[in-house]
This record gives sequence, C-alpha cells and structure tokens, in this order.
Amino acid sequence: MWMSTFWRLARPALQRSTSAAACRALRACRRPGRSGPTSMQLRGQQTLGSACVPLAQHSVRTVRALDEERMVEVEWEGGGHSLYPFTWLRDNCQCPLCTLDSAQARKLSMLDLDVHTGLDAVEVTNDNKVSVLWPDRHTSAFDADWLKRRCFSAAARRASREELFLNQRHYWDSELRVPTADFQEVLRDDRAALDWLLALRRVGVVHLTGAATERGAVARLAERVGYLRLTFYGHTWQVQDKPMANNVAYTSGKLGLHTDYPAMHFAPGVQFLHCISAAEEGGESEMVDGFHMAELLRREDPEAFRTLCSVHVDFTDTGTDYCDFMLQSKKSIIE
Amino acid sequence: MWMSTFWRLARPALQRSTSAAACRALRACRRPGRSGPTSMQLRGQQTLGSACVPLAQHSVRTVRALDEERMVEVEWEGGGHSLYPFTWLRDNCQCPLCTLDSAQARKLSMLDLDVHTGLDAVEVTNDNKVSVLWPDRHTSAFDADWLKRRCFSAAARRASREELFLNQRHYWDSELRVPTADFQEVLRDDRAALDWLLALRRVGVVHLTGAATERGAVARLAERVGYLRLTFYGHTWQVQDKPMANNVAYTSGKLGLHTDYPAMHFAPGVQFLHCISAAEEGGESEMVDGFHMAELLRREDPEAFRTLCSVHVDFTDTGTDYCDFMLQSKKSIIE
Repeated sequence: MWMSTFWRLARPALQRSTSAAACRALRACRRPGRSGPTSMQLRGQQTLGSACVPLAQHSVRTVRALDEERMVEVEWEGGGHSLYPFTWLRDNCQCPLCTLDSAQARKLSMLDLDVHTGLDAVEVTNDNKVSVLWPDRHTSAFDADWLKRRCFSAAARRASREELFLNQRHYWDSELRVPTADFQEVLRDDRAALDWLLALRRVGVVHLTGAATERGAVARLAERVGYLRLTFYGHTWQVQDKPMANNVAYTSGKLGLHTDYPAMHFAPGVQFLHCISAAEEGGESEMVDGFHMAELLRREDPEAFRTLCSVHVDFTDTGTDYCDFMLQSKKSIIE
Repeated sequence: MWMSTFWRLARPALQRSTSAAACRALRACRRPGRSGPTSMQLRGQQTLGSACVPLAQHSVRTVRALDEERMVEVEWEGGGHSLYPFTWLRDNCQCPLCTLDSAQARKLSMLDLDVHTGLDAVEVTNDNKVSVLWPDRHTSAFDADWLKRRCFSAAARRASREELFLNQRHYWDSELRVPTADFQEVLRDDRAALDWLLALRRVGVVHLTGAATERGAVARLAERVGYLRLTFYGHTWQVQDKPMANNVAYTSGKLGLHTDYPAMHFAPGVQFLHCISAAEEGGESEMVDGFHMAELLRREDPEAFRTLCSVHVDFTDTGTDYCDFMLQSKKSIIE
C-alpha cells in the first residue's frame, strides 16, 4: 500500500513546503538573508489549502494578569482576546538569555524554570509588545504578532496546525486522475516545484513527464528539492530482470501491490521511479491508496480492520546489494 | 534522552547482528557464498544472551492432518509436537512457484491463495521433509528444521524473537560502568566489531578509545559496519563554537540533556561522537538512560508519566546547513 509508505515519510518531508525537502525549491525566490518563507510564499500556500494565521499586524488593546488562573489575558484591537499561562510565557521568554536567536532555540534550562512562577507586572509597551516583569526581576517582551500566532483558542490552534502541517489530503480510488507535472519545468521553475510538492503531499502520487530516457533523472529531481536517502540497495537502483535476483522486483514476474521496505524501521517516504525503457508487453505500474482502502475496510469489516491494526507480522529482507543485509521487523499491516 | 533516540533506530540497525549495520563486520568470517550468519556466529550470539533455537537437526516422527482444526500436527523424534495451520502452510510453500529462493521472498500472490484451503494428504518423505498435497494438486515440501524453527508454541516463539531481535537490554543509572572498546581493534577484528555492536545494542552507549585525534574517524567507524545517514546537517558535522550558530550545540553555552533531532520524523539511532579536541574547562558529556528514567517516573508519578506519553508538543528545527531547513513535528515526550 504505497500511500501508507508515502505517508510515513511525507509528514516530515513536506511540512509547510519549507522543509529540507522543499526549501531548495524555494530558495531562489527568497529575499537575501531570509531563511524562512516570504509572505508571498505563505499566501501561495494558503491558496493551496493551508489556512494559516493572517499575516496582518496585530495590536494589543489591553493586557492584564489573572492571578487566580495564573494567566495573562490579552485583549486585541479589532476584538477578541487570548489567554497565556504564566508558566508558558516564562518558558517561552524570547530574550537573549533564554533564546538563542540565530537558532531560534531555547537556552533556558528546564532546571532554571520555575513552573510555579508568579508574575509581578504586565504591560503593553509603546512599540506594542507585551512586557512581563517576573518575581526574579527577569523581564520578557513578547511581540504582538508572535503572541497572536500562538493563541491557545481551538480555532487558532487548528489554523496553526493547518499552516504547519498542510493537513489537506485527498484519498482516492480508481476515479483518481493522477496529477501531472513537467519534469523540466519542475527543475527550472520554483513555483512548479512547489506545486509538484504540494500535489505530492496532498494526493501521494504525481506523474512527471518529459525527463530524458537515461539514468540520472531521479537523482537530479531529488537534488532539486533535497537529497537522496542511502539504503542497502544504494542511493538509486535499477528495477530490471536480474539473475539471482535479491528482490522479486528484479524479476520479470508479476509484482503485486505492496508496501516497500516493510522490514525497515524507517520505510521510504517519497519514492522516485523513472521509466527509462517500457516493456513491450506488461510492466504497467499499479497503485492503491492504502488510506482509502483502510478506511473502506474499517467501515465494511471492523473486525478485519482491528486484526490488521493489532496483529504484528514478521517482515524480513535479506541478500547482498550495496552491502549485504538481513533485516527483520515485526509490524502490523495497518499502522 | 539519548537512549530513547538510540532505541528508535537501534531496533532495525542491530537486529540479529546481521543487519546492514553489522553484516560488514561479519562478512570477513563468512564462508564464501553464505549470506546468512554461520552457525559459529549464531553460537557467538547465544553466549551474548540470544536464546536462539538449537541448530541441531530435527527429525519428524509422525505427521497427521487434523481436519477439524485445519491443522497439521508434527510429532518430533525426541518428543514434543507442533501444530501448523493449513492456510499458513499453503501461504508459506517454499516451492519455486511460490517462493523466489534467491531473494527468500514470496512469489505467491495473495489473490491466488485460498485461505480456506483443505488438504488432501500429508506425509513424511524419505529425506525427512513434511510433504503436503493440496486439493488443487499443488504440493509443498517443508524441511524439518525449517518447520521446527517456526513452531507456534509460546516457548518457541519467545526463543525465535530472542534470536531475531536480541532483546536483552541493560537499563542503567549512575552506577553504569560504560562499556569500552578499542577503536583500532574494532576496525581490524570482526569479533571485536561484533562485541562492540552487541554492547551498543544492550547498553546503548560504548566508549571507544584509541582513534587518531583528527577528522574522519567517525566516517571510518560507520563504514566499518554500514553507512552514514545524510541529514540536513550533512553526513558529519563539527560540534564547535560557531558564529550565528544554527544550533545550541554550536555554542560554548551549557548543553542540557536532550534527545537529538526530535523535529525529525526519523530520529537518529546510533550517533558517533568523536572528541578531537577537549575543552580545557567544561565540555564533559552527560548521558541518561531515558528508558530507565521513564520507568522510574512511571512508578513514582504515573500521572506525570501518562501526561508525557499522551500530550503532543511541538518540535521545530530551522536554519541553514547542508541545505536550509524548517522542520516541524508534534510528538509526545515519551514515545
């Protein structure tokens, strides 16, 4: 079930279309010095179904400490208010002592965090930051937009999840019209590369056309958006009839529907397959949306679904290729 | 919590000490043409705590079909019997039509498997195989040792799991005396390499001494037993004070206990750290057995344990290194 394989790596690989996988596609259209996406690109994502928090400047009207609930309440210009726990604010202090700005990483050690901290004073500064004075005289200043993006309301968190994880999915059956993209255009044009990645993320499969019928296209495509992952079959491999085949894929026999590398702890996510020479007869590729099928099974035969989710079966892969290998794993069929 | 990081990749990486990671260490002492471990090596594993099924030849005394239960009962010379379901036997037929011997992989399509198959006849052949005649006139012959190793009794399955997954673990606290190995010996001697891998598997950390104080040792060690995994920090990276550090590890500040790469879907398993130049002051490495601590917490504060197992927190890693990256994940602290 190819989709389930895809899914397992797609989540980290294509997050927000600014992951390691996608960043290269976007780099050319970044403003110098920006390592994050430009707002233009974020809007681009929104048109593709990501409901990220609007980028408009937010302003704080009033702010007050609710000592009983140990929350800071922020009332926004234009209506609405947000609540932020004392402990969360202290834990997320953005000052140079608590946060390494160049890495956008915390420096504040958990050991130095008083999870029961009170709060001495909170106010809105002239430059529209929320400034907090802590009992230990440490001060934190939070940018209004930074706070708004981290609002704990259910709606804001849902929107944030959408923005960060591009949750839009299209599960499909035989009605699917496989999305297509032009290989050369994806290599050349950042917008085309982004659209390709977003379609891959959403549907799980994209048919690229127009690659030269020679080896190397797969590596070029991967380099375009990230890097190839080395396995014991090497960086790339040739799916062709081989003597003493160490894999059923290396024979002329029928290759049924399957999930690749189930014996691996980390199954491949996105796989690039390049048809260099089509067989005169046979050789068609078959794909199934494992999520769609699993959902059908769950509805039509819940007990079978539970069995496939709970019973661990043995997977093994053994042979010699890039190196010799003998892998063994125990996994349920539906994860 | 380094151990938890280790654990996540250690399982596939060190299975049976004949995985891609370990196979190279073993290759030199293999007999030509053998891609599996030699029995000598298996015994070697047993002395290191793997209770694999004895390798002695097994003989079948009698065999009969239990049509009611749809099981084949094998009675062994030397006592004991095993039960094998009809469907399982048909599904695992080892004949060239059903199994690709060179890949040790199934060729029989699920579509062609009658899960409700009966059985026309079962007998012990002169060469001590269990031969089955199926209603469709297909025949299967199962080697006695092959069957014995796949006995479904709880004890046999426990032994098989031990052999396949080397489950022996040592969880530790500050009393731990970190296992040590000699870097040069591990490179030179296969037995030393295997012992190193087994200790790494069992304890999660091994201190290697005697590497030259220059770059390249990490890569040599990895090449010895497998291959390095590429990340957006590159194949290897230098943990040193850097201007505009994209990671807290690249500063002279204190680096608290942490799990590496939590923002990645696939956290690193085994990490090789080579101290080339020790700081005159500070710079000590700290490690904690995350499994030991999690177990302590589970006992001493079950509610806190449940919280850390169930609440998903955001992890993010952003910056520029081997490529520019922006990763985001939601995971529980204890997985």
